[in-house]
Amino acid sequence: MTDTARLHYVALGGAGEVGMNMYAYGYGTDEDRRYILVDVGVTFPDMESTPGVDLIMADPGFIADQADRLEAIFITHAHEDHVGALPHLWPRLKAPVYARRFTAEIARMKLDQAGLDPEIVNLAPPWPEQIAAGPFRVGFLPIAHSIPEASSLVIDSPAGRLLHTGDYKADTTPLVGEPYAPELIQQVAAGGIQALVCDSTNVFAPHPGRSEADLAGPITELVRKASGMVVATTFASNIARVRTLAQAGEAAGRAIVVMGRAMLRMLDAARRADVLPDFPTLAGIEDLERIPGDHLMVIVTGSQGERRAMSAQLARGAHGRLEIGEGDTFLFSSKTIPGNEVAVAAVENQLTARGVRVFDGEDGRYHVSGHANRPDLEALHKLVAPRMLVPMHGEFRHLAEHAALAEAGGIAAGLAPNGTILDLSGERPVIAGQAPVGRLYLDGSVLVGARDGIVRERLKLALRGQVILSLLLDEDGNLLDEAWAEIQGLRNELDDGQTLGAEIEAAVTRDLENVRPKERQSDDAVERIAKKSTGDVCLQLIGRKPAVLTMINRIT
Amino acid sequence: MTDTARLHYVALGGAGEVGMNMYAYGYGTDEDRRYILVDVGVTFPDMESTPGVDLIMADPGFIADQADRLEAIFITHAHEDHVGALPHLWPRLKAPVYARRFTAEIARMKLDQAGLDPEIVNLAPPWPEQIAAGPFRVGFLPIAHSIPEASSLVIDSPAGRLLHTGDYKADTTPLVGEPYAPELIQQVAAGGIQALVCDSTNVFAPHPGRSEADLAGPITELVRKASGMVVATTFASNIARVRTLAQAGEAAGRAIVVMGRAMLRMLDAARRADVLPDFPTLAGIEDLERIPGDHLMVIVTGSQGERRAMSAQLARGAHGRLEIGEGDTFLFSSKTIPGNEVAVAAVENQLTARGVRVFDGEDGRYHVSGHANRPDLEALHKLVAPRMLVPMHGEFRHLAEHAALAEAGGIAAGLAPNGTILDLSGERPVIAGQAPVGRLYLDGSVLVGARDGIVRERLKLALRGQVILSLLLDEDGNLLDEAWAEIQGLRNELDDGQTLGAEIEAAVTRDLENVRPKERQSDDAVERIAKKSTGDVCLQLIGRKPAVLTMINRIT
Repeated sequence: MTDTARLHYVALGGAGEVGMNMYAYGYGTDEDRRYILVDVGVTFPDMESTPGVDLIMADPGFIADQADRLEAIFITHAHEDHVGALPHLWPRLKAPVYARRFTAEIARMKLDQAGLDPEIVNLAPPWPEQIAAGPFRVGFLPIAHSIPEASSLVIDSPAGRLLHTGDYKADTTPLVGEPYAPELIQQVAAGGIQALVCDSTNVFAPHPGRSEADLAGPITELVRKASGMVVATTFASNIARVRTLAQAGEAAGRAIVVMGRAMLRMLDAARRADVLPDFPTLAGIEDLERIPGDHLMVIVTGSQGERRAMSAQLARGAHGRLEIGEGDTFLFSSKTIPGNEVAVAAVENQLTARGVRVFDGEDGRYHVSGHANRPDLEALHKLVAPRMLVPMHGEFRHLAEHAALAEAGGIAAGLAPNGTILDLSGERPVIAGQAPVGRLYLDGSVLVGARDGIVRERLKLALRGQVILSLLLDEDGNLLDEAWAEIQGLRNELDDGQTLGAEIEAAVTRDLENVRPKERQSDDAVERIAKKSTGDVCLQLIGRKPAVLTMINRIT
Repeated sequence: MTDTARLHYVALGGAGEVGMNMYAYGYGTDEDRRYILVDVGVTFPDMESTPGVDLIMADPGFIADQADRLEAIFITHAHEDHVGALPHLWPRLKAPVYARRFTAEIARMKLDQAGLDPEIVNLAPPWPEQIAAGPFRVGFLPIAHSIPEASSLVIDSPAGRLLHTGDYKADTTPLVGEPYAPELIQQVAAGGIQALVCDSTNVFAPHPGRSEADLAGPITELVRKASGMVVATTFASNIARVRTLAQAGEAAGRAIVVMGRAMLRMLDAARRADVLPDFPTLAGIEDLERIPGDHLMVIVTGSQGERRAMSAQLARGAHGRLEIGEGDTFLFSSKTIPGNEVAVAAVENQLTARGVRVFDGEDGRYHVSGHANRPDLEALHKLVAPRMLVPMHGEFRHLAEHAALAEAGGIAAGLAPNGTILDLSGERPVIAGQAPVGRLYLDGSVLVGARDGIVRERLKLALRGQVILSLLLDEDGNLLDEAWAEIQGLRNELDDGQTLGAEIEAAVTRDLENVRPKERQSDDAVERIAKKSTGDVCLQLIGRKPAVLTMINRIT
């Protein structure tokens, strides 16, 4: 405990992973520190670790448990990993939310869908205006990223000015949204930056990042040369890319149709936020039937091979109104996010099997990243010349590499994965404690703790299969019927014509009958005997021990 | 049906995927066609589609159902995707197996472990000797790959000579095992090749493949410069790479320790097959305690981030005898197989968090592929000048691209994914029918059909969670007790202090009591009512409908 006011930083999510960003800044004494939160994002579940889960988000407990000290929530941009958890966690935080127009459109839509008041979100004007939030003054500094109106945050505190980059790229021609503006950043940094809290995603990418504008040529060329229908997919929120694709279609004299709810919603938000200049007029989905394929450019969702998205539907021929086939072209204007490789390859294979020519963004011809590469990061370090650097937005190896890069450039770096509280008040970052961190799962309509064991139980059932035993006894321990076994996720038919279920029923019944009735008066003993019999039979007959659930009914 | 003898090719596995290779060649009339099988491999399961499954293999039914027509089985090399299913499927095939020495060592080990006679496997001499198998004569033509004694097969039939490449790379200096030898291939092809059946894995790799020998320099340099302990991982079967790593350690004056059962087994087999020249003397695992880290080079299993392998154990500090940490070096001399990206990144992050410097093979500096790249394939097409080409060993998009490449070079190509029977007797490949194909899962000790629904049931439990209802009624339909609900993989505690289980029990009991006793005499009706109540309660309280299993006990 100290009685002098200190400036603290702690990531509750996003530092040690790519996803579920949530960063807290605090200023004050330990008795009365006031906080702001930056971003409230989600991570997406996978079958490997989180089957059946709808969304994953950072556990906001550290701040939620002292929510009266939270002054405000700032959302840097509208990507799901920065804004997606807002409707689920805001009820625990209950602080005013600030975002720029496009981000606010998306955030308000989410709140509205969740039955919350969209007006929780306040419109933030861009820098040089600032928003007062307790001891902090926060400005939204426009910066380039793969979505409109992404912002760095200029966070002024009594302990000095912080620059929180948010997700950014050093793109001076991003086509949609504001460019990366070194002069502006220099002005902001002119009075000295106490700490640069910086995007680390692409720290291992050795070459300077390329511009969104570099893609227009190759994409226009690809569409111009294509003979059949052209279908292209990209991230729904990458408005600049959707626009480039649409303009390429227009230049080739094609009618443009956009399909996929997420993308249409993003375009609507972009229109309302007035960040959609020179966007070609779209044809409607009902026009698909009258326009021949070689006059059509279709832009769809599903760049990650998501099963329900448009690209996967078209690939498996499951879309009622549009069929893609021999001689058509499909462009993935995107990169495959780690973990989605197999799903994307499956879509590519299905399309190829239909005779479609498939192009992807893997070699950089049809896709550029939304994050600053290593030389771009070095340039920003020099431009800002902060007293210290805190790497964020990356897996641990990205944070460590980014910290080493800063140190090599003479800047003190603080390696702070989720939960590590850094004191940024002094000459260099100092670890000031540990905040409780964790993950919450949105599961249907309820939030579940990652360590509650609920998902672990699902994984156990999937990995082991299950035998459910129903046993009927009286209070004296007499078995009133044979054991009844239901088999789930296991082969029931045995090679000798018998069934696994019948063998288990016989063994459990026999083993229960072989003990004294007095022992059968105890449910624990009955369960223990029944589970052992079942495990033994399964190991012998099918070579594995499934999960066993015993339901003992005592009839009086 | 034809009454003239024809030459048929059909992939039962491996064409339309990378894995579970199994190719059949047949010659004769439809009434009396005689077959040989090439390779009997596995694919590895994943949580996404095959939770709990131990191994995946091609359903050999097409051949097994006419096993009396199967003359012999030829194994091209000892990778799991070519030999791994032998012990599981041989009992359905029961034909003599032929393999070269190193491959035979591995195959025999597997048969022995499965309680089968290792002598099923016959040693095959290399080309120019040939093995008679019905109408075929088969020769093992040495070729380079990432494992010793890989072979192409020269398959002579009355309809002409086939060259089945197996997995290969155009490496003239593979360090261990025989080189790619263009002169030898030219000799084989001199009399004309009816069909080249060819590896398609790397058809999208635009540059000529690099040699295993190219790695010795960079790896030796990396180890020489390292200050702390060096740990390196690669595929256990890549004997040449293990040797390069060991020699790099030796050159740096380090003691070499190999850890991981799979790798030690491969080295043993290589020693017995006499394909391990100039291999440094190994220190024992018991020496780890007395040798300081900077005098140590440890070569381990786990290049794919497998949870139980050495690399993952070291990364999470779970290995009892060896600890890796600050200042040590870890080298992935391997590529990450699609689908394993997240697991490998997790290991890299854990190592980085321990202060270990991590290097990987992604940029090609410390790893080369075992497969021929696009220009290498083109060179082989020209060298062999076959009448026709059949692409194999690849996903559909690889096969299609390889077929297009051959056609562009003036060679007729036959695109034949698993199950497509090609007639190779004529001027160009002709589709002659469709063989039944599918996947079998090894699950514990039993084989399960992929379409049996067993794994689908596991996935359902994992994705939805489950409510199990135990209901006690008499024959007249009287409910003898309240419904009893067990909850699996769902949050039981509700926000109002109640439990989901209690709410379900109350609703089911109420809804059952609300119908006439006569209706409750039917198990079907009871089940229907109970399931509906459960689904409604769950949807209302937790926002999702779980799986429901109803166990109705009728007490007499």
